[in-house]
Amino acid sequence: MTSSDSSPVAFVRAAVDAELARFVAERRAQLLEIGGELAPVVDALEAMLAGGKRLRPAFCYWGWRGAGGADTPDIHAAAASLEFLQACALVHDDVIDNSDTRRGMPATHKRMEELHARSGWSGAADGFGRGAAILIGDLCLAWSEDMYQASGLGLEALRAGRRPFDAMRTEVMAGQYLDMLEQVREDGGVEAALRVMHYKAAKYTVERPLHLGAALAGRYDDLGPVYSAYGLPLGLAFQLRDDILGVFGDPGQTGKPAGDDLREGKRTLLVAETLDRAAPADAAEFRRHLGDPALTPERVEWMRALVEDCGALAACERRIDDLVGQATAALNTDLIDDTARAPLADLIVAATARKH
Amino acid sequence: MTSSDSSPVAFVRAAVDAELARFVAERRAQLLEIGGELAPVVDALEAMLAGGKRLRPAFCYWGWRGAGGADTPDIHAAAASLEFLQACALVHDDVIDNSDTRRGMPATHKRMEELHARSGWSGAADGFGRGAAILIGDLCLAWSEDMYQASGLGLEALRAGRRPFDAMRTEVMAGQYLDMLEQVREDGGVEAALRVMHYKAAKYTVERPLHLGAALAGRYDDLGPVYSAYGLPLGLAFQLRDDILGVFGDPGQTGKPAGDDLREGKRTLLVAETLDRAAPADAAEFRRHLGDPALTPERVEWMRALVEDCGALAACERRIDDLVGQATAALNTDLIDDTARAPLADLIVAATARKH
Repeated sequence: MTSSDSSPVAFVRAAVDAELARFVAERRAQLLEIGGELAPVVDALEAMLAGGKRLRPAFCYWGWRGAGGADTPDIHAAAASLEFLQACALVHDDVIDNSDTRRGMPATHKRMEELHARSGWSGAADGFGRGAAILIGDLCLAWSEDMYQASGLGLEALRAGRRPFDAMRTEVMAGQYLDMLEQVREDGGVEAALRVMHYKAAKYTVERPLHLGAALAGRYDDLGPVYSAYGLPLGLAFQLRDDILGVFGDPGQTGKPAGDDLREGKRTLLVAETLDRAAPADAAEFRRHLGDPALTPERVEWMRALVEDCGALAACERRIDDLVGQATAALNTDLIDDTARAPLADLIVAATARKH
Repeated sequence: MTSSDSSPVAFVRAAVDAELARFVAERRAQLLEIGGELAPVVDALEAMLAGGKRLRPAFCYWGWRGAGGADTPDIHAAAASLEFLQACALVHDDVIDNSDTRRGMPATHKRMEELHARSGWSGAADGFGRGAAILIGDLCLAWSEDMYQASGLGLEALRAGRRPFDAMRTEVMAGQYLDMLEQVREDGGVEAALRVMHYKAAKYTVERPLHLGAALAGRYDDLGPVYSAYGLPLGLAFQLRDDILGVFGDPGQTGKPAGDDLREGKRTLLVAETLDRAAPADAAEFRRHLGDPALTPERVEWMRALVEDCGALAACERRIDDLVGQATAALNTDLIDDTARAPLADLIVAATARKH
C-alpha cells in the first residue's frame, strides 16, 4: 500500500491499527494467563484505543518519510506506540477532570464503575472505577514503551529516537499539570493559555512526533528545526480548532455534549480572549458560569453568543489562519523528502479542519 | 567501595541514592525551564523517593553481581530506575486506596491537596491533590524507563534486560488490579490472596529485579530459573512479613497507625487464614469490622487477638520459615558468583526480619 491510495491520515491509520491489534492480542494472552478476571481491563483498553484519529502516529510516520525513511512495518509499530501514550493521557485525564464520556462512549473509569455495579461487588463503585482506570492508564504508558522497543527498528535508531520520545512524555505531563493549575488559579489570561497549549498540544501532538520520526531516521539534527517551524504553529492551530469545537462543535461530531468545555471550565485561549475582550460586567458573568456542571442550554447559548460578539471567536480564527500560513511556509525547504511534502501539507488541513 | 563495607542493602542504597539524586537534579532543571510552578511536583516526587529501602535495586544489583557483573555506576543507575517504578506504584496506590499517609509522611495526593489549600486556589483541594498525584505517578513511570535507558549500559545489554523489565511492569499492574478485585469481591480466601502476592510481591519485588540483573549481564537463560527458585519464595515471605507488620507492627517502625491494614480492609493471606480458621461467629464479626475506617483501638485489639488465637499468625510465621528455607536452599548452586552468595543470603534476612 502506498500513500497515494488514500489520505495521509487514513493511510497511517490503517497501518497503525493493524500493529495495535497485533500488539494488544499478544498482551491480552499474557494478561489472561495471569488471570481471566483481567479480560475487562484489556477490553477497556481496546475500547479506548479504538476511536483515535492517529494524528500523532501520522506525524511520526510522515516525519520519518520526510527524512527519507522507507515504508516498513517497523516504523508503523514505532509510530503506533504513541497511541498508547495518548491512551494513558486520555484515561488519566478523564479521571482527573471527572469526565464521564470520551468520544461519545463511557470514559474508562465509568466503564469500570459499571462493571463493579453490574457485578454486585462490595464497596464504592466509583472508587473502584477510578482505581481501575488509573491502573489501565499506567498499563498504557508502560506498553507504549514496550511497543516502541519491540517495533523492530535497530538499536541505534531506537536510541536516537529516545531524545524526542522521552521529552514528549515529560512535556505532556508537565503540560497537563500546568493546565490543571490554570483551572484553579483562574488568573492566567492569554499568555498562560498559550504556554499550556505549547506543551500539551503543539509539542506533544505535532512537533515531538515529527522529531521522533526524524530521529529514528537519523535526521534529528538537520530536520528537527524544520519540523519545529512546521509543527509548533500547526499544533497550536490544531488546539485552537479543538477549543472552538469544544464550545461551538456539533455533539454528533465531537462526541461530547454541546458546550462541554464551558461546563468543565477549561481555561482555553478562546475563553481567555473572551474574558479579555468582553465588557467587564459580561466578563464577570461569563466567569461566574464557567465550570458550572449544571449549566443550562440557555446559559450555554448566552456564553456562545458572548464569545462571538466580543470578537474572541474571530480573533481565534484569524490566529488559526496565521498559524496555518506559518506551517505551510515551513514546508518550503529541500530538506524534506518529496514523498512527504504533499502528505505534510494535507496534514495541516486534517488537523485544523472545521469539522473533526 | 566494596560490599564488605556494610550490609548488602546499605551498600546498594548509598550507590542508588547517589544516582537518583543526580537524575532528579537533571530533571528538576528541565521541568523548571518549562515553568517555575512545577517545583512542587519535583519536591513531591523527591519526598516520595526519599524513604525507600531500595530492596528492588538491591535484588537487581546482586542479581547482576551473582551473574558475574562488575560493580560500576552503570548498574547502579539501571538498578535505581526500579525505584521510579516503585514510586509510581506507591503514589497511585495511595490515590486508589485513599491512604493519607505513607511512611509516616503525607501521601503525595495529600501533599498536593495541602498545596492547593495553602495557595487559596479555587475548586476542590482534594480533587486537585488526586489529579496532581496521578500525573506525578505517570512522570515516575516515564522516568523509570528514561533512567534505565540512560544508565550507560550497552544497547545489547539493555535490550536483553527488556524481557524482565517489561514483564515486571505489566505484572505489578495486573497484580494491583487483582488486589483491588479481591477487596471488593470478598470471597477469595487463601488461594486468591496467594495469587495476588505472587504477582504484586514475589515477582515484582524480588524475582524480576533479580532477573533484570541476570539479563543485563547476559545470563538470563541459565540464572533465570535459579533466581526464581530463590526469589519467588523469598518474595512471598517478604510480603507475609509485611502483612503481619501491617496488623501487629509498631507505628513508630511502620510509619502507619496501628492495625492500619485492618482499617483499610486489605485481603491479605493473614486475613484469609483468620477467616478460614476462626469460629464462624468470630469470623463473621471480623469480616464485618474489616475495612471500617472508623475502627476503634479496642476493636483493633480484639481483631489482633483473634488473628493470634485462631492460629492464623502462627500459620503465617510457619509459612515464612518454610519459604525462607526454600530461598536459602536455592542459593546452593555454583551458577551464582561467589561475590554475591553472602549478600543474597543477607538479603533474605533483610527482607523478612520482624522489624523493618
